[in-house]
Amino acid sequence: MRDLLPEEAKARRALGRCILERFALAGFALVTPPAFELADVLERGLGTLDPSEVLRFVEPESGEVAALRPDVTPQIARMIVTRLHDRPPPFRLAYEGTVLRRRSGRARTQRQIPQVGLELAGVAGPEGDLELLALAADALAAVGLRDFTIDLGNAGIVRALLEGVDAGVARDVSEALARKDEAELRARLDDARAPFAGALCDIVRMHGGREAVAEGWRLLATTPAAAAAAQLLELFDAATEHGLGAHLRVDLGDVRGFAYYTGTIFQLYAPGPGEAIGAGGRYDELLARFGARMPAMGFAFDLDSLAWALRAAGQVPPREPRVVVVGTEADPRVQRLRARGVPAVHAPSRASALTWARAWGFTHVIDGAALVDVDTGRESDDAVGFVGGDRTE
Amino acid sequence: MRDLLPEEAKARRALGRCILERFALAGFALVTPPAFELADVLERGLGTLDPSEVLRFVEPESGEVAALRPDVTPQIARMIVTRLHDRPPPFRLAYEGTVLRRRSGRARTQRQIPQVGLELAGVAGPEGDLELLALAADALAAVGLRDFTIDLGNAGIVRALLEGVDAGVARDVSEALARKDEAELRARLDDARAPFAGALCDIVRMHGGREAVAEGWRLLATTPAAAAAAQLLELFDAATEHGLGAHLRVDLGDVRGFAYYTGTIFQLYAPGPGEAIGAGGRYDELLARFGARMPAMGFAFDLDSLAWALRAAGQVPPREPRVVVVGTEADPRVQRLRARGVPAVHAPSRASALTWARAWGFTHVIDGAALVDVDTGRESDDAVGFVGGDRTE
Repeated sequence: MRDLLPEEAKARRALGRCILERFALAGFALVTPPAFELADVLERGLGTLDPSEVLRFVEPESGEVAALRPDVTPQIARMIVTRLHDRPPPFRLAYEGTVLRRRSGRARTQRQIPQVGLELAGVAGPEGDLELLALAADALAAVGLRDFTIDLGNAGIVRALLEGVDAGVARDVSEALARKDEAELRARLDDARAPFAGALCDIVRMHGGREAVAEGWRLLATTPAAAAAAQLLELFDAATEHGLGAHLRVDLGDVRGFAYYTGTIFQLYAPGPGEAIGAGGRYDELLARFGARMPAMGFAFDLDSLAWALRAAGQVPPREPRVVVVGTEADPRVQRLRARGVPAVHAPSRASALTWARAWGFTHVIDGAALVDVDTGRESDDAVGFVGGDRTE
Repeated sequence: MRDLLPEEAKARRALGRCILERFALAGFALVTPPAFELADVLERGLGTLDPSEVLRFVEPESGEVAALRPDVTPQIARMIVTRLHDRPPPFRLAYEGTVLRRRSGRARTQRQIPQVGLELAGVAGPEGDLELLALAADALAAVGLRDFTIDLGNAGIVRALLEGVDAGVARDVSEALARKDEAELRARLDDARAPFAGALCDIVRMHGGREAVAEGWRLLATTPAAAAAAQLLELFDAATEHGLGAHLRVDLGDVRGFAYYTGTIFQLYAPGPGEAIGAGGRYDELLARFGARMPAMGFAFDLDSLAWALRAAGQVPPREPRVVVVGTEADPRVQRLRARGVPAVHAPSRASALTWARAWGFTHVIDGAALVDVDTGRESDDAVGFVGGDRTE
């Protein structure tokens, strides 16, 4: 539970707004699901919710169990099926909201993650995959982040290689893959006599540029993961063609993300935050659990991590003028500045005006004819010109 | 728990943004407190929380009881005292967020109310009161609502007249006042032999224009409520002077709103919704409960009710162009429209483009050289000009 103080709250809001505007240009409509959701809906999307991972409560009026959502996608899936079913696909939906997640690596501490995300339902395969990768890159460019990586994977690869393997073993193998712990992986696979142990061990090392995905495609050609590996290679080449090549990396052993992913998955990284600035994937089987079989894919930015990456990249919010006028609220200069779109307040003296302006991020103090730049302390007699000198009092 | 579907979500967001921009012009900085708060913080502001009114849960990591907030003001009070105490007053803070309230009149059903509000801490009495009334009116003008009423009251009037009266009697009297049930009120006051029974019965009828507050001022001149009545008259005249006269009404027996109000209180009404579109008041004693004695006042708009009032006033969101291009995502016209700031998507055929556009509120379909207006069905051959004909493919 964390407060956003003025500077951070403003930057965060501007960031969310900029991304949503890019999504709107691409035809994605904003929807707003509630911040808490029936546990049943969330579980249909996410599987059994670990009680230590989710904040639940009983709704007094209905007696139903609700939870603060760890993920918005199941809510959008519910919305598509129950509220928007009379509209034709594709469903292009965007959202901004907060999810609650357990902090990685620390037991039992949770964090609220402000997200902006989108879902594209009704567009299958490579076409939808590429549209979403391009949109993620477009949004990052729009907020001014140049240096970022798209880590591409395909959830179908490991899924196909583990098909038919005991669920407990599959979970252990996935955890070893996530840690890239080859020794542990080999031990688990040997114990279980898993059929594609060799391929599963090989893909731990298949990460990097195009050579990694091409090698994987060759090595997996005779396994049940052949189709997923081919999809990954195809998407890599299409994304390169689209101009995203400089940002692309692949990881064939990638098993991160939600259990509902079925195909392409990706994480976005940038220097600064230790965690991904965004992540997403294809979930072609999720909507069927809500009653409408439809291919779908989505991703979300973590606005905390993204803001961190922007700070690390040296991006500073523009210094827009904000003025303290030495006078009263009724001072016509206060009103005139606001009418011009410049935030303005009053203060009783120059000293109090300067103190207040420094503490609250205001850029200028106007005292009679004097205009003082708060950062530099420099004073000029251009107050009249600054306020808009075309009218005089 | 309610979803906002595309049209409503977009209108709601635009409404919140417009109001926050007006608040920012007046120097109010956005802050974002968390959606749930420690019950202890909320109770310090609101008194004991009725368990049937508040959704509570136990935080797994700390074992502390948190609740979905029914009101943002105690959170801002906490923030001022614990997070912003090193900055000089006045504190001008704005927020947007959802609160959870029991629906008036219906037992045990709750609604999520999206709010935009502000708090002004460190400015006492009439100056702060008038600044906030003016800001509320300014924000309503900015969103295009002309026909609204400011119902002014002063929580100090009834509070002063009930000073020293048994708490149970005071509660019954307040409830009778809220219902304007004069018979019940008289019976309760007679039973309790309350000292200012006559004045309390008289003020039930003191509502209306300036004559009501002037009459109240005279009648209460010899009671402990004299100062509060004088404040109300003074604020009424100052607000009239400020140009708000056409919107003003008074109600001397007003007891609505949170228990923490100490002085000026007001509700905003407009034709359409049965409930107030906004409400606020002065709470000069609340910050002391968090450790910093400071006069303060705030108000919030209920964006659901406000959106309803705007619809009732016939305000229609502007019809901005949004285009479906018959072609592919890579179609240069799709990209060029987006570059011009026009939302654009693709569809495989004119029929599917028209169906999709109608369902999702898109205004135009472009098919080759043809430009189709989705609402009227009218077709012209001006697609090139519409997209921006200065470049040709």
